[in-house]
Amino acid sequence: MRLAVLGVGLIGGSVALAARERTSAAVTGFDLRPEALTAAVARGAVDTPAGDVAEAVGQAQAVFVAVPVGALRATVTEALAHAPQDCVVTDVGSTKRAVVAAVDDPRFVGGHPLAGAETSGVEHARADLFEGASWYLTPTARTSGVLYERLHRLLHALGAHPCAIDPQTHDRILAAVSHLPHVFANVLVSLAGATMGEGGELLPATGPSFRDATRVAGAPSSVWTDIYVSNADALAAEIDGAVAQLVQVRDALCRGDREGITAWNEFAAVHRRRLLDQGLSGRPLVELRASVPNRPGVIAQLALELGRAGVNISDMALYPAADMSEGVVALWVAGEQDAIRAVALVGDLGFPVARA
Amino acid sequence: MRLAVLGVGLIGGSVALAARERTSAAVTGFDLRPEALTAAVARGAVDTPAGDVAEAVGQAQAVFVAVPVGALRATVTEALAHAPQDCVVTDVGSTKRAVVAAVDDPRFVGGHPLAGAETSGVEHARADLFEGASWYLTPTARTSGVLYERLHRLLHALGAHPCAIDPQTHDRILAAVSHLPHVFANVLVSLAGATMGEGGELLPATGPSFRDATRVAGAPSSVWTDIYVSNADALAAEIDGAVAQLVQVRDALCRGDREGITAWNEFAAVHRRRLLDQGLSGRPLVELRASVPNRPGVIAQLALELGRAGVNISDMALYPAADMSEGVVALWVAGEQDAIRAVALVGDLGFPVARA
Repeated sequence: MRLAVLGVGLIGGSVALAARERTSAAVTGFDLRPEALTAAVARGAVDTPAGDVAEAVGQAQAVFVAVPVGALRATVTEALAHAPQDCVVTDVGSTKRAVVAAVDDPRFVGGHPLAGAETSGVEHARADLFEGASWYLTPTARTSGVLYERLHRLLHALGAHPCAIDPQTHDRILAAVSHLPHVFANVLVSLAGATMGEGGELLPATGPSFRDATRVAGAPSSVWTDIYVSNADALAAEIDGAVAQLVQVRDALCRGDREGITAWNEFAAVHRRRLLDQGLSGRPLVELRASVPNRPGVIAQLALELGRAGVNISDMALYPAADMSEGVVALWVAGEQDAIRAVALVGDLGFPVARA
Repeated sequence: MRLAVLGVGLIGGSVALAARERTSAAVTGFDLRPEALTAAVARGAVDTPAGDVAEAVGQAQAVFVAVPVGALRATVTEALAHAPQDCVVTDVGSTKRAVVAAVDDPRFVGGHPLAGAETSGVEHARADLFEGASWYLTPTARTSGVLYERLHRLLHALGAHPCAIDPQTHDRILAAVSHLPHVFANVLVSLAGATMGEGGELLPATGPSFRDATRVAGAPSSVWTDIYVSNADALAAEIDGAVAQLVQVRDALCRGDREGITAWNEFAAVHRRRLLDQGLSGRPLVELRASVPNRPGVIAQLALELGRAGVNISDMALYPAADMSEGVVALWVAGEQDAIRAVALVGDLGFPVARA
């Protein structure tokens, strides 16, 4: 596999490292900052540094665009202009609506790995950054099934769990589970800083809940301003929901409403348990085989339908028929329950499906 | 040392385990729930189970009251009624104004270790729970210096860093660094739960920022309702501050105000760095010796003054003169800078002080 990585920071560098360590991929890299590219070569992430995007992607079979969200549209478009016809192009941006709406090419699949760190830069890149991490993909009806499958396999090889999702749902969920937590972390350190400031008090060492809750506070503005702004409406809606709940809690406190406080806390406990239960994995994989017509959008349709229902596709493979008129897609899902649901969902789409 | 622990849950059980493993203490225990007391004995935390508070504290030199915040006043009062004259009584409650205001006895020192876990119960107790943890103490002008020093040494032996603070400041700081983070965690899981609910979407595995930010969501109501209610005014003030900031951020998002968002994020980054810098430790200890009159409140005054200035007393020792009219207190503080500040602060109180 010939891979190109555009933007060799923490995420791009980790994609490159993981691909080189876990597959036989050769990695070409490009970065607008020459020093970052030099560091990526020194770090062993990039085999071949390129002088521009065209040179980086010219021979690639897969391109990862790992630039800040604000630069995604331009960089993805440039990559598609120079990439071969048989090359999948993806990005790793934290918001998906804008870039997916701006790019209309069967070779493009929007992507977003749920991995990261408080750090940035290729010097902090790690080959195991994506081990066990969810990696969202946003295929559309125009997406090439063959290229989608290639990307899916590649991400799986990097250790990630690819999961198809539509861009609207992605951005709404990420507002709730990533962007709002970042906003909260910022608010917490700012308020604690103000509390320290009053009367010259210094804040002694704080407890574990504060450290955990503020790990992502003040994350790099070069990355996060773009994320916040590109998801402004979804994030604003989550903030409104948060403010409404905070005002209710404040009022219950001021009334001394023990029952109300307890009920609210128990409600949170139930939700947390539900989220934890969902995060459980490690169940045995079941292989399913579905016969599908060989037309654009079929693989995306399958992946989206299962993703929407919460059935995670752990791995997939495509077996086109000789005349390319139809094909068999093999899907691996975790556990008996997901297998039963997947069979029903794929059947409802009108495709013959059975266990392998 | 003869120790009594009233309430053998996670914190009380860990105090008992740590005292038995790290000192030569014999531990008597009592709990209103007989099954908890039986478990604490089985766990090796308690040597001698007692039938009531009076029996537990009758021969004790130090008593730890580790019951829910709502039961602190009654239990501390009962312990003081039955404890010997030469016995220090402390508690581990997460809020300090109410209990300190309610108890007026030179043997009582309010306390609060910044340690805990998502778990509760003696089965999760650990001898190393307090290793490196801050442990707030709230001595008053009436507090016995000799008993305060005994408690300070004991906590140090448990691995903790005792730090004196007044109850008002304690409750205000804890509202900012503990109670508000718990409220935020609850809000985050509730909103994410609601996002999952919409249209039957299931939330796929979430990212690390969400896991960290919601670790303490839905913490046990048996503990937390009391904490929230007993610190209602301070917590409500922090919530008001949070809501004001959230509304500003929301408005900046809706305006597409990149500069405003960036400035706010950078402000948070500065505060986080400041908080991290303060949390640094591991500097060499410097020993100071101060001569102090042997009257009630002197040790509390010293400890509070240094604590207020952010100078952490890593260890302390009292050497009373033969006629008990005055004494020398030895203080160990971390690093050159804290040593210089401690000398100045103690000197300003009018006590001769020098490096040992």
